Amino acid sequence: MDALKVLVLHGPNLNLLGQREPEVYGHTTLAEIEEKLREHAATAGASLDTFQTNHEGALIDRIQAARGEVDGIVINPGGFTHTSVALRDALAASEVPFVEVHLSNVYAREEFRHRSMIAALALGQITGLGPIGYELALRALLAHLK
Amino acid sequence: MDALKVLVLHGPNLNLLGQREPEVYGHTTLAEIEEKLREHAATAGASLDTFQTNHEGALIDRIQAARGEVDGIVINPGGFTHTSVALRDALAASEVPFVEVHLSNVYAREEFRHRSMIAALALGQITGLGPIGYELALRALLAHLK
Amino acid sequence: MDALKVLVLHGPNLNLLGQREPEVYGHTTLAEIEEKLREHAATAGASLDTFQTNHEGALIDRIQAARGEVDGIVINPGGFTHTSVALRDALAASEVPFVEVHLSNVYAREEFRHRSMIAALALGQITGLGPIGYELALRALLAHLK
Amino acid sequence: MDALKVLVLHGPNLNLLGQREPEVYGHTTLAEIEEKLREHAATAGASLDTFQTNHEGALIDRIQAARGEVDGIVINPGGFTHTSVALRDALAASEVPFVEVHLSNVYAREEFRHRSMIAALALGQITGLGPIGYELALRALLAHLK
Amino acid sequence: MDALKVLVLHGPNLNLLGQREPEVYGHTTLAEIEEKLREHAATAGASLDTFQTNHEGALIDRIQAARGEVDGIVINPGGFTHTSVALRDALAASEVPFVEVHLSNVYAREEFRHRSMIAALALGQITGLGPIGYELALRALLAHLK
Amino acid sequence: MDALKVLVLHGPNLNLLGQREPEVYGHTTLAEIEEKLREHAATAGASLDTFQTNHEGALIDRIQAARGEVDGIVINPGGFTHTSVALRDALAASEVPFVEVHLSNVYAREEFRHRSMIAALALGQITGLGPIGYELALRALLAHLK
Amino acid sequence: MDALKVLVLHGPNLNLLGQREPEVYGHTTLAEIEEKLREHAATAGASLDTFQTNHEGALIDRIQAARGEVDGIVINPGGFTHTSVALRDALAASEVPFVEVHLSNVYAREEFRHRSMIAALALGQITGLGPIGYELALRALLAHLK
Amino acid sequence: MDALKVLVLHGPNLNLLGQREPEVYGHTTLAEIEEKLREHAATAGASLDTFQTNHEGALIDRIQAARGEVDGIVINPGGFTHTSVALRDALAASEVPFVEVHLSNVYAREEFRHRSMIAALALGQITGLGPIGYELALRALLAHLK
Amino acid sequence: MDALKVLVLHGPNLNLLGQREPEVYGHTTLAEIEEKLREHAATAGASLDTFQTNHEGALIDRIQAARGEVDGIVINPGGFTHTSVALRDALAASEVPFVEVHLSNVYAREEFRHRSMIAALALGQITGLGPIGYELALRALLAHLK
Amino acid sequence: MDALKVLVLHGPNLNLLGQREPEVYGHTTLAEIEEKLREHAATAGASLDTFQTNHEGALIDRIQAARGEVDGIVINPGGFTHTSVALRDALAASEVPFVEVHLSNVYAREEFRHRSMIAALALGQITGLGPIGYELALRALLAHLK
Amino acid sequence: MDALKVLVLHGPNLNLLGQREPEVYGHTTLAEIEEKLREHAATAGASLDTFQTNHEGALIDRIQAARGEVDGIVINPGGFTHTSVALRDALAASEVPFVEVHLSNVYAREEFRHRSMIAALALGQITGLGPIGYELALRALLAHLK
Amino acid sequence: MDALKVLVLHGPNLNLLGQREPEVYGHTTLAEIEEKLREHAATAGASLDTFQTNHEGALIDRIQAARGEVDGIVINPGGFTHTSVALRDALAASEVPFVEVHLSNVYAREEFRHRSMIAALALGQITGLGPIGYELALRALLAHLK
Repeated sequence: MDALKVLVLHGPNLNLLGQREPEVYGHTTLAEIEEKLREHAATAGASLDTFQTNHEGALIDRIQAARGEVDGIVINPGGFTHTSVALRDALAASEVPFVEVHLSNVYAREEFRHRSMIAALALGQITGLGPIGYELALRALLAHLK
Repeated sequence: MDALKVLVLHGPNLNLLGQREPEVYGHTTLAEIEEKLREHAATAGASLDTFQTNHEGALIDRIQAARGEVDGIVINPGGFTHTSVALRDALAASEVPFVEVHLSNVYAREEFRHRSMIAALALGQITGLGPIGYELALRALLAHLK
Repeated sequence: MDALKVLVLHGPNLNLLGQREPEVYGHTTLAEIEEKLREHAATAGASLDTFQTNHEGALIDRIQAARGEVDGIVINPGGFTHTSVALRDALAASEVPFVEVHLSNVYAREEFRHRSMIAALALGQITGLGPIGYELALRALLAHLK
Repeated sequence: MDALKVLVLHGPNLNLLGQREPEVYGHTTLAEIEEKLREHAATAGASLDTFQTNHEGALIDRIQAARGEVDGIVINPGGFTHTSVALRDALAASEVPFVEVHLSNVYAREEFRHRSMIAALALGQITGLGPIGYELALRALLAHLK
Repeated sequence: MDALKVLVLHGPNLNLLGQREPEVYGHTTLAEIEEKLREHAATAGASLDTFQTNHEGALIDRIQAARGEVDGIVINPGGFTHTSVALRDALAASEVPFVEVHLSNVYAREEFRHRSMIAALALGQITGLGPIGYELALRALLAHLK
Repeated sequence: MDALKVLVLHGPNLNLLGQREPEVYGHTTLAEIEEKLREHAATAGASLDTFQTNHEGALIDRIQAARGEVDGIVINPGGFTHTSVALRDALAASEVPFVEVHLSNVYAREEFRHRSMIAALALGQITGLGPIGYELALRALLAHLK
Repeated sequence: MDALKVLVLHGPNLNLLGQREPEVYGHTTLAEIEEKLREHAATAGASLDTFQTNHEGALIDRIQAARGEVDGIVINPGGFTHTSVALRDALAASEVPFVEVHLSNVYAREEFRHRSMIAALALGQITGLGPIGYELALRALLAHLK
Repeated sequence: MDALKVLVLHGPNLNLLGQREPEVYGHTTLAEIEEKLREHAATAGASLDTFQTNHEGALIDRIQAARGEVDGIVINPGGFTHTSVALRDALAASEVPFVEVHLSNVYAREEFRHRSMIAALALGQITGLGPIGYELALRALLAHLK
Repeated sequence: MDALKVLVLHGPNLNLLGQREPEVYGHTTLAEIEEKLREHAATAGASLDTFQTNHEGALIDRIQAARGEVDGIVINPGGFTHTSVALRDALAASEVPFVEVHLSNVYAREEFRHRSMIAALALGQITGLGPIGYELALRALLAHLK
Repeated sequence: MDALKVLVLHGPNLNLLGQREPEVYGHTTLAEIEEKLREHAATAGASLDTFQTNHEGALIDRIQAARGEVDGIVINPGGFTHTSVALRDALAASEVPFVEVHLSNVYAREEFRHRSMIAALALGQITGLGPIGYELALRALLAHLK
Repeated sequence: MDALKVLVLHGPNLNLLGQREPEVYGHTTLAEIEEKLREHAATAGASLDTFQTNHEGALIDRIQAARGEVDGIVINPGGFTHTSVALRDALAASEVPFVEVHLSNVYAREEFRHRSMIAALALGQITGLGPIGYELALRALLAHLK
Repeated sequence: MDALKVLVLHGPNLNLLGQREPEVYGHTTLAEIEEKLREHAATAGASLDTFQTNHEGALIDRIQAARGEVDGIVINPGGFTHTSVALRDALAASEVPFVEVHLSNVYAREEFRHRSMIAALALGQITGLGPIGYELALRALLAHLK
C-alpha cells in the first residue's frame, strides 16, 4: 500500500498565528504547528502537504487540485467557515474525507461563529483545543483512512 | 446593426462539471455546454465569450470589464449566488441585462441555497433544468435584446 | 413511439394576461402564448392541451385526470404557487414530470411571492422571462422526456 | 353622470351571519345587512350588487367580471383574507378601488388573523365595528368615488 | 333516542388513496376505508355519510349543510389542513364536534405539514396510523357523542 | 337621557395635518376635521371635546381625566400607536369604549406601522380612509353607545 | 406464534390522573385506564405491562430494558414530550415500534406543548381524545404488529 | 506531583453503544472505549474513573462530587447536551476543566442537536469522529492539565 | 452615618391604583402603599421620597435629580418598563442602585410585558406579589445599602 | 386555625450555595438560608419544611406529596426553571400557591435564563436579590395565605 | 443669500454628558460641545441654535417649530433613537434635512441599540466618534446645504 | 514625533465611483476623493496611502501588511461589509484603529445592507454623507490618533 497523502489547509489570517490576539489564538506559530504535524505524519508513515491563503478562490483551487491526489484533508477555514457556500461545494466536489479544526472555542464567541457551512460534510469537527487540535484531527483522519 | 455580444459567466466549482457529483449536476462538461452555446449564438448571429473562475474578485473584475462592452450576460454564480453582495453590486453597476442560471434545482436542496443575492436584479432565473438551462437562458437573453 | 402529450396549466388571473397590469405581466394574451406553444409542440411532434382556471379545486381535478394520460406538464399556478399544499400534493400524486413557469420575476416582488410550494418537486423553474418562459419550459420538458 | 355601481362581496361562511357564533359575529343576518346597504346606496343615487360564496375561485371570477363594470367594491373576504394571494392578484388586476371590511376585531383574535393579504391594496380597512362597518365602508367608498 | 349521524369528510387528493404514493399513504383505497367505517357505524347503531372533494369551497358548503343535521364529523382535510382559515371558520360555525385524521405521520414530513389550522378546535387528532386511524376516530367520536 | 359625551384625541404630529406630506395625509386640516365632527355630533345630539398633543404623558393624563366623564373616545394616536404600552394601559384603565382611527393606510406603509398596541382593546379600527375615517368612527361609536 | 407483548408507559404527573385538574385531564384514574387496557389486550391475546414514573432517567431505563423484550410500546411521556432528547434517543435505540398518546388536546394549549420530540419516530400520535386514546393506541399498535 | 485524576462521564443511552443504531454510533462498546482510555491514561501516568447514567440528577451528583477531587473531565452528555441548564450549572460550579465529546456528527443531524448547552464552558469540543474522539479528548485534556 | 435616602418612583397609570382594573392590580391605592412604605422606612431609620408621573420625560428628570442625592430607588415604571431605552439610560447614568417592582405577574400577561428594558441593570426584580411587593423591594434595597 | 405549613424547595446545584461561584451566587450557604427562613416562619407561627435535590423526578415527587399537605411553596428550581414542562405540570397539579425565587438576576445573564416555565403559574417572582429573596418570598407567601 | 440656520438637538440624558459613564460617553460636557459647534458655525457664516430635553413631546414640538425656520438639523436623539415612531414622523413632517449623530458606537453595544427609527430618513449617520462626531455632522450638513 | 501614516481602503466596485449608478453613489470619482484626502492629510502633516480591490483576499493581505506599519485605517469595504468574517478577523488581527465609511445611506437601502460585520470593532462609522464622508472619517481618525 502506498503511503497516505494528507493535505492541511489554513484559511484567512491563520498566517498570523502566534502573532495576533494571543489571548484568543495562543502563541504557537503556524510554522510550529505544521512542523509538529509533519513529524506526526512521518511517524505514521504518511506524507503531508500544507497550504495557507487569505483568498477564498485560492483555497477552492487547491481543494480542486487535491481531488484524486490526496487521501484526506485537515482544514481550518478561518472566517470562511461561517459564510462560504463555494468552499462547501469545493469540498463536496473533491470527494476527499476531511476533518474541520478550529483553534478557539467558536461556541464561546460571537453567534455568527456558531454556524459552520462545512461541518455537515466533515468526518468530524475539533474546536477550542488550540494547536493540539490539528494533531488530534490528523490522528483521527489517519485512523479513519486506515 | 452590429452583432450582439454575450458573455457567459460561471462561478466556483463549475469547472468540475461532468466530473463531480453527477447525481446532482449531470455528466455534461463545461466545455460541451459552452460549445453548444457558441453554436446557438452563431446561428443567432451573436458573438459569445465565456469565463469561469473560483475567485469572487476575478468574477467582479470580469463583470466590470463587460460594462459597455457586452450586450447581455448569462451567469451561473455557483456558491456565490447565495452570499455575495459584492457580486450583486458589480452586476448592478455593469448595467448589463443578465439571466441567472442554476443547473440543479436549488429549491430542492439545502435552505441556504433558496436565496439568491442577484435574482431581484436579473431579467429572470432558470433553475434545475440542467445544461439545457444555459441554452434557454441564452435564447431568452437574445430575444430580450432584439 | 407515440407522440408525447403535454399539458399546459394556468392558475388564477392568468386569463387576464395582456389586459391587466401590463407593466408587470406584459401585453401578450394567453391565447397568443398558447398558439405559440401549440406551434412549437407540433414542430416537435408532440400534442398539447391547455387549461386555465381560477379554482384551486378545478386545477387539482385536472392534474388528477392527467395522471397516466399526459407525459409532462408546464404549469404556472399564479397565486396558488405560494400557498397551496393541495396543489403540491396533486402534482406529487400525478407522478407526471413538470416545469414551473412564472412570467414576472417573483424574486423582485413582495416577499410572500419568493416561496413556491411546488418548486422542490419540479424538474425546474423558469421565472421572470415573460411569455417566452412558457416556450423555454416546453423545450426543457420535451428534452427531458426524450 | 351615470349612477355609481358598487359591488359588495362576502367570502366564506358569511352566509351564516346571525346564525353562527353570535358572541363573535353578532345577530344581524347577511340579508339584513344587504338590505340596509341597498337603502343607503339608493339614497346616495348608487346601484348596488351583492355576492356571497364559499369558493375562492368563484370570488375571483366575480371580481374579474367586475372589471370595467363597477366603480367600487366593498369586500369582506372572511377566511380568505389571511391566505389568498390569488384573491389579492384578482383585486389588483380588476383595477377597481375597494374597501376591506371585517365584522369582528381581527386584532383581538388569533394571530393568524392579524395579517391581511389585501389590505395594502385597499383604499382602507374597517374592522371590529360589526354590521355598521359595511355601511361605513360604503359611505367611504362613495365619498372617494365622487 | 335517534341513531347518531356521522359525516366523514375527505379533502383534496384523498380520492387517489391506494393509487398514489403507496410508500406514504398505503394501498387501501378510499372505498375500502369507507366500507369499513360503514360496517363499524352499523354495528354501533349509527348512520354514516361520506364526502370527498378537491374543492375547498365544496368542503365548506358540505360542512355548513351538516350544521344541525349531523352529530359528529370525522375529517381528513388533506392539504387544506395546513392553510385554510375558511375551513376552520366553517367547522367553528357548524358547532359540530369533530375528530381530525391524517393517514401519514405529518410530524415526520415537511415542516409546513406540522401546523394544523383546525386542531385547536377538534376533539382530538389521530395521525400516522394509516387507514385504521379513520376507524379509531369514528370510535372516539361515537364514544364522545354517547 | 343625558346627551352622550365624546372625546376625540389626536396624537403627535397630527396638528400638522393638511400642511405636511399631503401625498400621505391629504390636504384637510385638523381644524376642518374637528369642525365636521362637531357638526355631526350636534346633529346626533352628542357633545364633543377634542385634544391634540405631541406628549405621550399629556395624552395619558387626558385619557385618565376622561374616566367616568365621557361616554366614548375616538382616537388617532399617531406614532404612539405602534409603541406605547402606557397608552394602552391608560385606555384599559379608563374603561371608556373607543374607536381607533388612522388617516393613512398603515398596512401599505413600513412594517413597524402594522402593529397597533391598542387595537385589541378597541371597539374597532378604521384605517386608510382619510379625514372621513374620523366621521365614520364617530358614527360607529355613537351607534354603539346607543 | 407467541403472544404479543406490549408495554404501556406514562410520564410525569400521570399518576395524578383523575385527581388533578379534571377540566383538563378528565376524571378517570390511571388504574382504571390500565384495567381497560389489560382487558383489551387479553381479548386480543396480548400481554401487557405498565409503568409510570416522574423520573426521566427511570423512563429511559425502562425503555432500554424493553429492547428485544416487548413488541410494541404505547407511551404518554407527559411533560417530557416537549423537551427530552434523551427520551427520543432511548426510543430510537430500543427499535420498538410505538404509538404516542396525549389525553388533552395539546394543540389547543400553550405553544410549547405543540412540539413533540418523539412524534417523528412514532408510528402515529393520538391527541385530545381522553382515556379512550390509550385504547385506540393499543388497537392501532396491535393491528400494526399483526 | 501527584498523578492527574480524570473523570469520564457518559450521559443517557451511551450504555447501549455498539448495540443500538450502529450506522449512527458505530460497533464499539462503551466497555471497549473505556478500556482504551484506561490504557492511555496509564501510559500518561494518570488515573481514570468512569461513570454512565441515564439520570440527569445522577450525572449532576457525580459532577458535584468531582469538585476538588478530579483534575479534568471528559464528558459526552448524550441527549442532555442540547437541553440541560442544570448540567451546565453543575459543570460551571465544579470548576473542573472539561472536554465535550460526541460520537456522531451532530451538525449533520437534526437541527435541535446543533446547540450544546455546555460548549461555551468547555475547553473544547470533539464531534463526529467516533470512539477515537474520546481518546483525542483525553489527550487534549491531559495536555492542557500539564 | 446619615440616614439613608430612598426614592420611590411610579410610572404611568399607577396613580389610578385601587380604582382601575382591581382584578389585575388590586384595591389598595397608591397613597396607602406609600403610607406603608414611609412607616417602614421610618422604622428602618431611612427617609423616603415618592413621585408618580405619566410623563416619561418627567420620570427621567426626576431620576437625574436623584443622582448623588438619594442612596437607592424603588421603581415601578408601569408601561415604560417594556419600551423605554431613555429610562434605562437615565437609571444607568444615575448610578443609583434600584429594585424594580411590578404589582401584577407580568409573565402571566401579554408577551410584550415579559421584556423589561431595565431589569438587567437592577439589583433585582419583584413581580406579581401586589402592594406588598413594594415593601419587599424597600427591605431588599435597605439591606443592600447597609 | 392550624399553623400554616410552608415547603421550601431548591433545585439542582443549590446545595453548593456559598461554595461555588460566589461572584454570582454570594457566600451564604443553603443551611444558613434555611435557618433564617425557619426563624422567620416560627415568628410568624408557621411550620416550614425544606428539600433540595439535583433530580427533576425527585422534585416532582416532593411537589406531588405536598398536595393537600402544605399551604404554600417557596421554590427556586435552579436550572430546571428554564426547561421543565414536567415541573410546571407538577406545580399546576399540586394546586398549592407558590412564589418563585432566583438568587441571581437572571435577566442580566444568558438569554436562555430569561424564560421561566413556571412564572405564569406563580403568585409572583423575586429575582436577583440574593439570600434575602427567599425571606421576602416567604413573607409574601404568608401574607397571601392569611 | 441669508446665513444658513442650523438647529442642534439632543435627546434624553445628554445633559449629563461629561458627568455620567465617561468610559462610554467621554469627559466632554454638552456645553463644551455646543461651544465648539457655535464657533464652527460662525466661521462658516451660519447661525446655530441648540436644544436638549428629556421629553419626547418637547423634542417633537421643537422639530415642528423648526419647519420652515431652519435649514438643517443635527440630531442625537439618545434613547429615543431606537423606539420613537413619533420622532420619525416629526422629522419627516418637518421636511428639514438632518444628520444623525451618536457619541458611542451603538453597533458595539446592546442589540436594541442597533436599530435607528430615523436613519432611513437622514442624510447620513455618524456613530462612535465621540464629541467630534457633532462637528463632522455640522460640516456635512453645511456642505450639503451649500 | 514621526508623521502619522494612514491607509485608505476601498472594497469591490468602488473603482467605478462616479461612473456607476450616480443616483446612489454620486458623480465624484475615486481619484477625486483620494486627491482631496491626500491634500487634507498633507495639511495635517500625515502621510496617506490608498488601495482599492475587488478581491477579498487582496484586501486582507493589504490589512495584514498594514500591521505595525500604519497608524490608522479609513475603510469602505463595499459589499464585503455585510458578509465577510475574514475581513473582520483581519482588522481585529491588525490591531490598527479604523473608521468605517459608506457613501450611501445603507439604512435606507435593502435590509441586508443594515448589518456591518466590522462596525463593532471600528472607532466609528460614517454613513450616507457621500464623498465628504471619507474626509470626515480621516479627520476623526487623525483626531483620535493625536
